[in-house]
Formats: sequence, structure tokens, C-alpha cells
Amino acid sequence: MTTIKPRTMTGTCEYLPEMQRHFSYLLNIIRTTYASFGFQEIMTPSFELKDILLSKEGGETEKQVYFIQSTGALEQNKAPDAALKFDLTIPLARYVAEHERELAFPFKRYQIQPVFRGERAQKGRYREFYQCDIDVVGKETLSIQYDAEIPAIIYNIFSKLNLENFQIQINHRKLLKGIFNHFNIPSNLYEETLRTIDKCDKIGIEKTVETLETLIPKNDVKGLIKLLTYEGSIESTLTFLSNLDITNSDFKAGLDDLKTIFEHLKNMKIPETALKLNLLIARGLDYYTGAVFETILTDHPNIGSICSGGRYDNLASKFTKSNLPGVGISIGLTRLFYQLQEMDFFKTLPQTEKYLILNEEGTDPKTLYDMAIKLRAENKIVDIYFEQAKLKKQFKYASDKAFSHVIFKDHAQDQFLIKNMITGKQIPCFNR
Amino acid sequence: MTTIKPRTMTGTCEYLPEMQRHFSYLLNIIRTTYASFGFQEIMTPSFELKDILLSKEGGETEKQVYFIQSTGALEQNKAPDAALKFDLTIPLARYVAEHERELAFPFKRYQIQPVFRGERAQKGRYREFYQCDIDVVGKETLSIQYDAEIPAIIYNIFSKLNLENFQIQINHRKLLKGIFNHFNIPSNLYEETLRTIDKCDKIGIEKTVETLETLIPKNDVKGLIKLLTYEGSIESTLTFLSNLDITNSDFKAGLDDLKTIFEHLKNMKIPETALKLNLLIARGLDYYTGAVFETILTDHPNIGSICSGGRYDNLASKFTKSNLPGVGISIGLTRLFYQLQEMDFFKTLPQTEKYLILNEEGTDPKTLYDMAIKLRAENKIVDIYFEQAKLKKQFKYASDKAFSHVIFKDHAQDQFLIKNMITGKQIPCFNR
Repeated sequence: MTTIKPRTMTGTCEYLPEMQRHFSYLLNIIRTTYASFGFQEIMTPSFELKDILLSKEGGETEKQVYFIQSTGALEQNKAPDAALKFDLTIPLARYVAEHERELAFPFKRYQIQPVFRGERAQKGRYREFYQCDIDVVGKETLSIQYDAEIPAIIYNIFSKLNLENFQIQINHRKLLKGIFNHFNIPSNLYEETLRTIDKCDKIGIEKTVETLETLIPKNDVKGLIKLLTYEGSIESTLTFLSNLDITNSDFKAGLDDLKTIFEHLKNMKIPETALKLNLLIARGLDYYTGAVFETILTDHPNIGSICSGGRYDNLASKFTKSNLPGVGISIGLTRLFYQLQEMDFFKTLPQTEKYLILNEEGTDPKTLYDMAIKLRAENKIVDIYFEQAKLKKQFKYASDKAFSHVIFKDHAQDQFLIKNMITGKQIPCFNR
Repeated sequence: MTTIKPRTMTGTCEYLPEMQRHFSYLLNIIRTTYASFGFQEIMTPSFELKDILLSKEGGETEKQVYFIQSTGALEQNKAPDAALKFDLTIPLARYVAEHERELAFPFKRYQIQPVFRGERAQKGRYREFYQCDIDVVGKETLSIQYDAEIPAIIYNIFSKLNLENFQIQINHRKLLKGIFNHFNIPSNLYEETLRTIDKCDKIGIEKTVETLETLIPKNDVKGLIKLLTYEGSIESTLTFLSNLDITNSDFKAGLDDLKTIFEHLKNMKIPETALKLNLLIARGLDYYTGAVFETILTDHPNIGSICSGGRYDNLASKFTKSNLPGVGISIGLTRLFYQLQEMDFFKTLPQTEKYLILNEEGTDPKTLYDMAIKLRAENKIVDIYFEQAKLKKQFKYASDKAFSHVIFKDHAQDQFLIKNMITGKQIPCFNR
């Protein structure tokens, strides 16, 4: 019989068990930190109805949607009525609108699930990848303190990972709008100006200036760029902004918000070295209306933002007439995991404590079972090698599978020993 | 603006946060028990290439497959080249064959992921549901002790859940084959006879007899049914089988296996009350070749098996020429969760310990942040109510969201109190 070559689809990820353990380690730190701030978990279905998922206009991401069709529907040549979710934001909006009466607001939820995009195959682009989202959704109002809590949570996660050189960069959409207004940029060009500025870290300052000059007068571009590229501590940047001769209400509102957010972050004991007021951060998504966040690894700026989000005025206007302001952030877990691996980040991750009981010919299996039961009652991970094999092979199995301890019989002393596979130290079993 | 009715697709599940907590509780017990026996986690992509997923013949389940197509492919009217996985067995086979050289055998893996089936919409049928699979895959050989370990793990899970009245039922495909052979059932009718017997708990004994009589002589049906419906303890059933005048090698091999498996289960300290040798268990899937398992809730026999599996000779013949025998079992988590809810199982689940710090007007937020930081450093879950609201409303929020503790200021004593929301007891904060 000819066999079919076993392979996965381009753009999907799967890991060998040890790598999967690293992935789960990362996921678990994110999960427990989210939970420690009182966020509740939700999970939504992998697919949603077409009219829920897609807007009439159809943005960039929507072009990458994966439709699903059962064999029957396909045979009948029906148009698909559902598609795989491509982010966790639309499902959240649908969820909150659908369950509005059953939820207590502010609703703080986290969600860690795969999302799907029909990307063209290329390195670092995934067709299925995990997102770890956290959002606070208010009803009618939402305290600005949540705009500080979100980056505080992100700080907590990356601190727990001992990821030293990261920086959470914060800016404000209203502040930018006020600045654009000050430079007489017509409001129909705001969106394009935002997008151009947002790409600055990728395309460089010269190219940014070039593009902006196709939109607005050269002199204004010069002033705008000079303002936005101001470099300094948070305090000096805030002072710099306060001293500018800009008086429109958007600018003022944005600046006030930023002052409040940084003040709260200070009180939340987030060190200033992990934060930055970066006036060039804009975020492409047009639904952000207040603070915006990005997170970069300062030693690897080329990676771009590993975690982004912001404040929005209204989460679910498509599904409900209620006004639901919110603030949230999303970690692209699959991509972050890939980057951390490239940085050899998991090399130093301690082994899991787990025990392999070796199985010598002639040993009563009952003895081995009893040991396993005893150890598992102590919440230990215990495996027994059931195959008939030489001890040498069993020891190799233990090291291949990264068992931290091996248990075997010392015939001279007629007792079982536990060998620590890392230190090599051996002690009698159950006399620890 | 008209809004779109927020709703999910029929046949998908999502839960409100408290129910999601119950789901995660269940999932977590399964996960940690699987891990405690030394199984390693893997996750495979949600979709696989068509030729990997589907066989040429196309079984019942394959008709329910969900194909996926990106917008681009759909517009070009291309035939889909990938589909969502409908079980975790084919992905396991593909995974083991693909990574054969990188894995240490016996390979013990668990996998907890959603699978997808284009089911017609009806109660208790899901289009997306979680499966929790555990398998041991050997290379060329696999010790029969693993056939005992699998039900032992299932016993551990349901014991930890305090689910008292469950029973793991075990039978053997070779034993059945030997019995069929004894009753002169032609081998081309084995499969159909198996399926008929397997349905006996659903359709009843009379209907089973009726169907069997269309296949084999009436007298043989009578003998066969009398044999298969033998009721007794494990020991007496084994004795009954040993004393039968059946001499073919399949029967003998099956009986020997069963004796060995039950002997090991006894040594693993699995109580006999949780086990049964049920000669009517057959399992529909034709790839089982040895022991087969089902698990029933004895107070709810109508539910059917909540967890099934068995031994197979060769996992991945489609993908590799290596001989990979294995044994495994699968818990249908979404369905089990639904059943447990119907039984009011989660009513007694203790609340999560979590703290809400109330936010009275005029309090310095720094004081609240400091308390939160302190408590989180003790690994506690802590939320601060950031909105401006009356204390009464904040207390209501705490009870709506099932906070176990609320922290608020006692102005008379000028100190913060922790109120236990279950007992009502109040103690000073940080003098615990």
C-alpha cells in the first residue's frame, strides 16, 4: 500500500511535546496574570455567522476570512453562511451584546483562543494563531483607571517572564487628532495621516516625511514631524506637550487623559523604564478613540509590537443600541512564542519535575504501581515504563523525555532509589 | 442605524463566565490527571489537508466534514483543499507518522481541543465540541499493561470529580471474534454483527435478536445472546468464559488479555465496583482490535457512554510503513459537561477565592493599588472597582460576580475590612 506523506497545511503551527510545554508555560503565565486582576474567562465558538463576522464595507482582514461549508452544502453548491473568526474582538462584541442583561458591568473578560486568517503563505504569517485578549467593557461610562490597568497587566506578564528589555508605549488618538487639527490637516485626511505615522517605525522617518508631503504642505509636515518625534522622559514629554501653543479641545482632552494614565501607572508601581509616551504610535484600526498601546522588545525593535490595543468608544454598535465603551489589549501568542524561541528564551526554562519508574524483568508490577500511587498522591507526575527493555534503554527513554527523576531497584541494598537526572544524586525512595 | 441580532450558530456552545468556570474546572481535572500519569500534551492545527483527513471510502463521520475556503479561493470557485478536523485520532496518526524520528516510544500523549462536525442541528448534537483524548502509541509492540492504565486513568478522573456512580465497561474484540467464529457466523458478517450488538443498550435485547436473526440462524442467535448477556462479577464472568467449550485462538487470546487487564487493574487498586466485563460492548469503529472501553453513569444509563476507546493494532498505516500499535480513550467534554449540568453537578462547586476592593469617593487610589499589589503577591485574585458608584451598587457587583471577599473602608475605625461574602464575617485587612 502506498502511504500519504504526513504533513500539515502551510501557515499552521504544531510543536513537539517539549516545545508544546514551553508554549503552555507562556500561555499559562498570561492566563493566570489576566485572572489575578479579576478578569473572567470566556470562550466563543470557532465560527460565527457571516452577517455577524463581516461588515458591509469589508476591511483588509475580512478579505482573509475562511468560510466553512459542510460536505452537504458544498455538494448543493450553496453559498457558505458561516466563517472562522479572524479576531477575538468581533466575537466579544457579539457576546456582550447577546448577553448584555446577564453580565455585570464593567465586564472584565479574558479570552485565549486560536483565530484564523486565509493569509498568503509566508514566513511569520500564520493561518491559525492564538490570541490572548483582555478587555474591560463598561455600560455608558468607563473609568480611565482601566486605561492604566491594562498596561499594568501587560507589565506584570512580561515581568513574570523575566523579559527585561520590553517597553510599553502609549499614545492617544485624541491628542493626535488635536495635533492634526493644529496643523490644519483636513479631517478627511486624518485616517491616512494616522496610518502613515503608524508605519514610521517600519518605513523610517524619511519615507514618512515623503508620504506626508503628498498629503499636506511641506512646512506643516516639518512642524508635525518635529513635534511627534520629540524624545524625552514621560514627564518631560508631558511638559513639552503642555507648553505647546495648542488649544483645541481634542488635544487638551488627550493630554489630560495621558497625564491621568501615567499618574495611575506610577501609583500602580509600574517603573518608568518600562513605559514610554511615544507620539508616533497610532494603531491602524479606526475604532480606537483614546489611549493606544504597543509593546516592543527594545533589543529587537524589528519585530514590531508584540502586544497592542487601546480605548474605544463603542464596542458593539453593530449589535446593540447600548453604548459600550471599552479598553483592551491583545497578545499575539503564536508570534510572540516564535520570537521568544528565536531568542533562545526557553533554554533556561526549568524542567518539569516528573518521575519515571523503571521496569526490570522479574519485578512484581504491584510494587511499581504502589510507588506510583504514593507519588501521585503527593501531586507528582509519575510514569511507569511498561515495555520489556534493558535498563540502559529505559534510562535513555527517561532522558529523551526529560524526566527529572528516575526510580529503579538497587539490588545490592534491596531497595528502590530515586536518581535526580540533573544532579545525578541518588537517594532511597520514600526515605526523602 | 439598524442593528444585527447578536447570535451564535446552531450547534455551537458558549457559556456565561460562571458556567465557563465550571467548564474549565472539569477540563482542568482531566488535564492534570492525564499529565499526572506522564502523558505529554500536544495540540494539532484545527484544519488538515483533505487527503490527510479523508479516506477514499469516506465513512459516516467524513460526510460531516467542514471544508474551509478563503474568500479568494471561493471567488475563484476552487475546490477546497483543507477541512476542519472531526476527531483527534487522524491528527494523532498524522502527527506520530510525521514526527516518528523525533518521538520516544512508547509515545504517551494527551490532547484537549475542539473538533468540528457538520451535524444536522438537533439537541445534544454539536457542530463544535471539545474532545479530551489520551493515547499510548508503541513502535512494533506495546505492553498490555497500558490497556489497564487507560481505564485506571479514567477511574482517577471520575473519582476526583466525586462522581460516584460510574462504571468502566471493558470487553475484547478478539474475544467477540472468537465467539462469532464459534457460532459459525461467516467472517463477512462480523462487522454487521458487531454493530448490532453494540447498539443493544440503545435498541434493547428484543430488537437486537430480531436484527441478528436476519443475519444468522435463529438457534445460533439464541446461544450467542445467552452467552453475551451473562451477568456476574468480573471473576465469575472470566470463569464462565474459561469454562465454555470454545477453543479457537482469537477467543483464547482475547480471554487471556482480559484476565491480564483485570489483574493489573486490581493491582492498580481500581475497585471492582467501578469496573465491569460487559460482553455486549463492541464499539462501532472498525480499527479497534483488542480491548474496548466504555464508561457509563449507572444512574443515567440513557446517556450512553461518556468516554470510549480501546486497543488498535496499527494507528497510522495510511501515513507510514512502521507498525504503530496503540491504546487510547476519548472523553467527549462538551457533552459530558452538558450532562453534568443537567444533573446539577456544579451546584456544589466551591466559589473561587477572589477579592473585590471597593472604591469610595475621596479614597486615594494609591491606597487601593497598594492593597491589590500586596494581595496579588500572595497569589490572590484581586479586582478593584474603578467606577464611581454607591457602595450598595458595588456590593451588588461583588455578589453578581461571585466575589468571595470584599474589601472596604471602616470609617469609624479608620481601617480597611475584609468581608467574607459567604459567612458575612469581617476582619481587618492585613491583620489576618
